[in-house]
Amino acid sequence: MSARLQTPEEYEKLLHQYDTWLFDCDGVLWRGDHLIEGVIEVLDLLRRRNKKVVFVTNNATKSRKSYKTKFDVLGVEAHVDEIYGSAYAAAVYISSVLQIPKEKKVYVIGQSGLEEELANEGIQFLGGTDPADNTLEPFDLGTFTRDPDVAAVVCGLDMKINYTKLSKAFQYLTQNEDCHFIATNEDSTYPSHAGLLPGAGSISAPLRYALGRDPVYTGKPASTMLDCVKAKVHFDPKRTIMVGDRLNTDIQFGKNGGLATLLVLTGITSVDEVTGPDPSPIVPDFYTDALGDFRIVEKAT
Amino acid sequence: MSARLQTPEEYEKLLHQYDTWLFDCDGVLWRGDHLIEGVIEVLDLLRRRNKKVVFVTNNATKSRKSYKTKFDVLGVEAHVDEIYGSAYAAAVYISSVLQIPKEKKVYVIGQSGLEEELANEGIQFLGGTDPADNTLEPFDLGTFTRDPDVAAVVCGLDMKINYTKLSKAFQYLTQNEDCHFIATNEDSTYPSHAGLLPGAGSISAPLRYALGRDPVYTGKPASTMLDCVKAKVHFDPKRTIMVGDRLNTDIQFGKNGGLATLLVLTGITSVDEVTGPDPSPIVPDFYTDALGDFRIVEKAT
Repeated sequence: MSARLQTPEEYEKLLHQYDTWLFDCDGVLWRGDHLIEGVIEVLDLLRRRNKKVVFVTNNATKSRKSYKTKFDVLGVEAHVDEIYGSAYAAAVYISSVLQIPKEKKVYVIGQSGLEEELANEGIQFLGGTDPADNTLEPFDLGTFTRDPDVAAVVCGLDMKINYTKLSKAFQYLTQNEDCHFIATNEDSTYPSHAGLLPGAGSISAPLRYALGRDPVYTGKPASTMLDCVKAKVHFDPKRTIMVGDRLNTDIQFGKNGGLATLLVLTGITSVDEVTGPDPSPIVPDFYTDALGDFRIVEKAT
Repeated sequence: MSARLQTPEEYEKLLHQYDTWLFDCDGVLWRGDHLIEGVIEVLDLLRRRNKKVVFVTNNATKSRKSYKTKFDVLGVEAHVDEIYGSAYAAAVYISSVLQIPKEKKVYVIGQSGLEEELANEGIQFLGGTDPADNTLEPFDLGTFTRDPDVAAVVCGLDMKINYTKLSKAFQYLTQNEDCHFIATNEDSTYPSHAGLLPGAGSISAPLRYALGRDPVYTGKPASTMLDCVKAKVHFDPKRTIMVGDRLNTDIQFGKNGGLATLLVLTGITSVDEVTGPDPSPIVPDFYTDALGDFRIVEKAT
């Protein structure tokens, strides 16, 4: 059973219990380009109480650096080293876990943010935003020169997805021996300012289906993302809480990591999925309407 | 157990047993643009023996009419009314089974062949080859005008697949009430002249994943395709044989329709999948190296 937070004491208890607060961003802090009410005050409250604040996003189209400008524009305090994205997690996974040799390359289906994170980790890549691969011209396998140094394909949300990129990635994954298959995240949809569009998990779907195998996912709910946070931030899982709006990514991510979980209803999940007659099997420890609800503790004092 | 055809008598027996011969094309008659040896002679042999010959292809990029030019170019005798394609089956399914009203429209992910077959059935459509939808420019849901008359989305192999098409299709399937989801076929790969590329099933994979539901498939192995053949050709399933190179499409299609099945090894399936230590659960009644093997009956007489 998920506990609905209601009284000032209940919110206060969570503030006492948890030292590290992990936040999903879209649907928790903002919706598209609109800040959600009370978010700035609650983040300030946490910082004043010396809580560690970490932002964990599956958005792989932006690097941490360019994602920080989103916080700046909306007036939300954040530091680059508090931000963890699935593109960053993919780059760290390739360099630290797979440890592919420096002369090897990664074929990218994704946008500039993914490329930036790979470059930061010193990983050579091709594809991505290369104009040659951003085309609707026919792809001719007969004239394609496969690069034997491609040791991995990494796939994130790519709004310039096309048949050339899919075909090249498929070639690398079937023809280059032991070529690794990595996807930033498995979100089926992406919340644009005007509504849902196909997400990163939908962009990798053609490859998954054509290959008949799944990639290693680096974003939530995969533990790869939490491993990235752990490598930089010291925290006690027992005193850490994950706040998110998606059950199958954010809340599952917290559960996989042994963290407490708090669902907010400002994003994709409706209260029915928690309390309805046919609830989700993924049960958050706590839920509340919005992050801004924590302001009640200040009004109460 | 699948029976390997070997002696002239065994081939002759099949010629006696079956009056109607259904053929897959790519991997059976030709590979890409190369005719497979002996095909013309064997098709001539069947016609001389008054067999009904039917060609059943999952290729949805061509209409039956334009597919016939492929036969012409390679010198294979065929008539338009002997050719059944998954695009044709999709159009017939929409007009005859769904019977969507004439003022309603279909949103197309696919190429000109699919559009031609829809037009032949008098179905209004949008998307497809429309230059406005064949773009890599960003898709903005906020400025998108959804057509309330779209009652179905049909998805075939589309080598100009892009985020705009996927996003529009996703909108229609989630926002237009009772919008039907149809895919021409579920082939994961497509055999191009130089090797395998992502197939029609991979093109619909993003939508299937984003929606969390499957389309109605009209191509092999779905019975929709056989229903289309049945509507035009009279045949006795007990005296009909399906000849193909793919176990999970062609052979399964024959089995679903209660037909005899013959696998040829000139396409995608290797003999290991039939006789190896870990054979496929889809077992053809007969198999032979190539369609041309039937020439043995003429040499024997």
